[in-house]
Amino acid sequence: MTLRVGVIGGGQLARMMIAPAIELGVEIRVLAEAEGMSAALAATAVGDYTDAATVQAFAADVDVVTFDHEHVPQDVLRALVDAGVPVHPGPESLRFAQDKLVMRRRLAELGAPQPDWASVSAPDELARFLDDHGGRAVVKTPRGGYDGKGVKVVSSPDEVADWFAAFAGEALLVEELVDFRRELAQQVARRPSGEVVAYPVVETIQRDGVCAEVLAPAPDASEKLVEVAARLGRAIADGLGVTGMLAVELFETTDERILVNELAMRPHNSGHWTQDGAVTSQFEQHLRAVLDLPLGAPDVAGGAAVMVNILGGPQGAELSDRFAAAMAAHPLAKIHTYGKAPRPGRKVGHVNVVSDELDDAVYEARAAAAFFD
Amino acid sequence: MTLRVGVIGGGQLARMMIAPAIELGVEIRVLAEAEGMSAALAATAVGDYTDAATVQAFAADVDVVTFDHEHVPQDVLRALVDAGVPVHPGPESLRFAQDKLVMRRRLAELGAPQPDWASVSAPDELARFLDDHGGRAVVKTPRGGYDGKGVKVVSSPDEVADWFAAFAGEALLVEELVDFRRELAQQVARRPSGEVVAYPVVETIQRDGVCAEVLAPAPDASEKLVEVAARLGRAIADGLGVTGMLAVELFETTDERILVNELAMRPHNSGHWTQDGAVTSQFEQHLRAVLDLPLGAPDVAGGAAVMVNILGGPQGAELSDRFAAAMAAHPLAKIHTYGKAPRPGRKVGHVNVVSDELDDAVYEARAAAAFFD
Repeated sequence: MTLRVGVIGGGQLARMMIAPAIELGVEIRVLAEAEGMSAALAATAVGDYTDAATVQAFAADVDVVTFDHEHVPQDVLRALVDAGVPVHPGPESLRFAQDKLVMRRRLAELGAPQPDWASVSAPDELARFLDDHGGRAVVKTPRGGYDGKGVKVVSSPDEVADWFAAFAGEALLVEELVDFRRELAQQVARRPSGEVVAYPVVETIQRDGVCAEVLAPAPDASEKLVEVAARLGRAIADGLGVTGMLAVELFETTDERILVNELAMRPHNSGHWTQDGAVTSQFEQHLRAVLDLPLGAPDVAGGAAVMVNILGGPQGAELSDRFAAAMAAHPLAKIHTYGKAPRPGRKVGHVNVVSDELDDAVYEARAAAAFFD
Repeated sequence: MTLRVGVIGGGQLARMMIAPAIELGVEIRVLAEAEGMSAALAATAVGDYTDAATVQAFAADVDVVTFDHEHVPQDVLRALVDAGVPVHPGPESLRFAQDKLVMRRRLAELGAPQPDWASVSAPDELARFLDDHGGRAVVKTPRGGYDGKGVKVVSSPDEVADWFAAFAGEALLVEELVDFRRELAQQVARRPSGEVVAYPVVETIQRDGVCAEVLAPAPDASEKLVEVAARLGRAIADGLGVTGMLAVELFETTDERILVNELAMRPHNSGHWTQDGAVTSQFEQHLRAVLDLPLGAPDVAGGAAVMVNILGGPQGAELSDRFAAAMAAHPLAKIHTYGKAPRPGRKVGHVNVVSDELDDAVYEARAAAAFFD
């Protein structure tokens, strides 16, 4: 029987699973939130992923259910599992990606290095944490945040008074403001039967809380750093029982430690470089992992790969209007678009460049992406 | 406006255009011969490509029409052009790929190196050619041949008496039996505005007249050979006005010449390695070329790439039944399948391996493909 993967969510991560699915000959079916989304070509259903009946119907004739995002409610996920549908990552694991307090507690149990953090239920608790951490800290809503949303640097509890109100009776997460040299990301893939492979740790560059660039492998990373990051990624994947792709966002501190910032249990922006720069892209790897197939080699396929996001895109125009100019100037650039209309700040595509020399890849990728401003 | 490419023919070549089309954000629409073909995911129409009205209707809302095969009749193509539809490659060029006698005549005009050949309308003419060429030669039907069909090595006109009967009033093509060391293929891409890029010349290994393996770049090829092959490819693309991908199948003779064997004006089996081994795959390149977009870099992305066809496949089973074993043993293997049921001799998929060392790539690709026997 043809293998069938059902993906909940029709965004660009689902879209980018389609190409490797076609090549492998895996049938991919997407439950999209609306018509005309990024993954429309594979959208066999359009519906509400918070509705158990909709999701059950979608899942009826696939071999495994996986995700474009981590927002499917626990009760919907558990109903699927109870009905005997393989769900990867499973609800137990996804809980750690859905709730940052649950994640922090579990990572603490695992002994994973983290920023100082606390669960704060009231302004005075937050005030105490601020006093203990130099007067400034990062407050996060435990659920619903992404791309910088639900994250705020504060020096007074007043600055998140609305969040305390909105999350009344629940706690917020507060974390120390880490003095970091740079941000890194460690991706691993893990399959249900336990095999894990680790990609090389990469450097990620954020702008306004959104991933802007990724350099792979992370420049000037010591062997020790590469090894420690890979081991940490594996330990978290094992410890949290993750199946599929896991991204561990890391701070590299000025005193040469790495601390876990965030987790994502799906393909991740920090791994888009793998489409052109790794033997096995994160999207093919995710399909293999959730189908419990042996994992592909995560090796870098050229000397260095650089990914630059196209954020916003040409307002009032289409990305394809810029193809001729960008392609003429940058024959090495691999242009990936998400079928989304340009809008300020929106992730609408990215450019990958693979080169023997990191500097060349950085230059080419930035210059090619700039054609889409 | 989103760019739209219409592909006539729903086979694996059309299928393999879908992945790069998704990534670029080009809409691909396929006119398939039947339901459930390789390119079914993009088959917006099913119909007869020899019927002008069917093809016209299909072409009504695409920016350019291109092909999975070269069999669309000239009158259908010319009707499209007359209706103002951009067709790439165009009918004038496709004629050279559709009729081997027309091709031989044109290559002779261009001064391209070829085997000795003749147009023979009757058995006695063939007998004379045989007498002049050591008693053996290759007879080809001018039209309708592929994968070894319509090609026969003969030592007497009697052996193709049925072809003379079937092509009554028309000529057959006869060619000298070339004493070749190996077979090569040179691919180039050319866009309507004239830009041409050449891929590195590759070695192709045939079995029973069907492409079995491709080694890229061609091992032990001198700089001179690489240059001569690329120049020949460019000259033919220019001389025949080809738009899109062109494959020139070559003999490398034992006295170190190259002679043109066959032409294909579309992505070609000799270029499947480019999916994983070149900066720009032949399928993305074909889309760029027919849309008259600037061409991508044709460079090899790793030291060497090897493609091994999956011919036949596991009879009575599915390719995916063998994934677990093949993937476990060969994490570097890139498996591509065509959505076709296994059948003796049928091309149902291929395996690419990219490696710094050709020998490793050959071993890995052969061993991985063997799991699908």
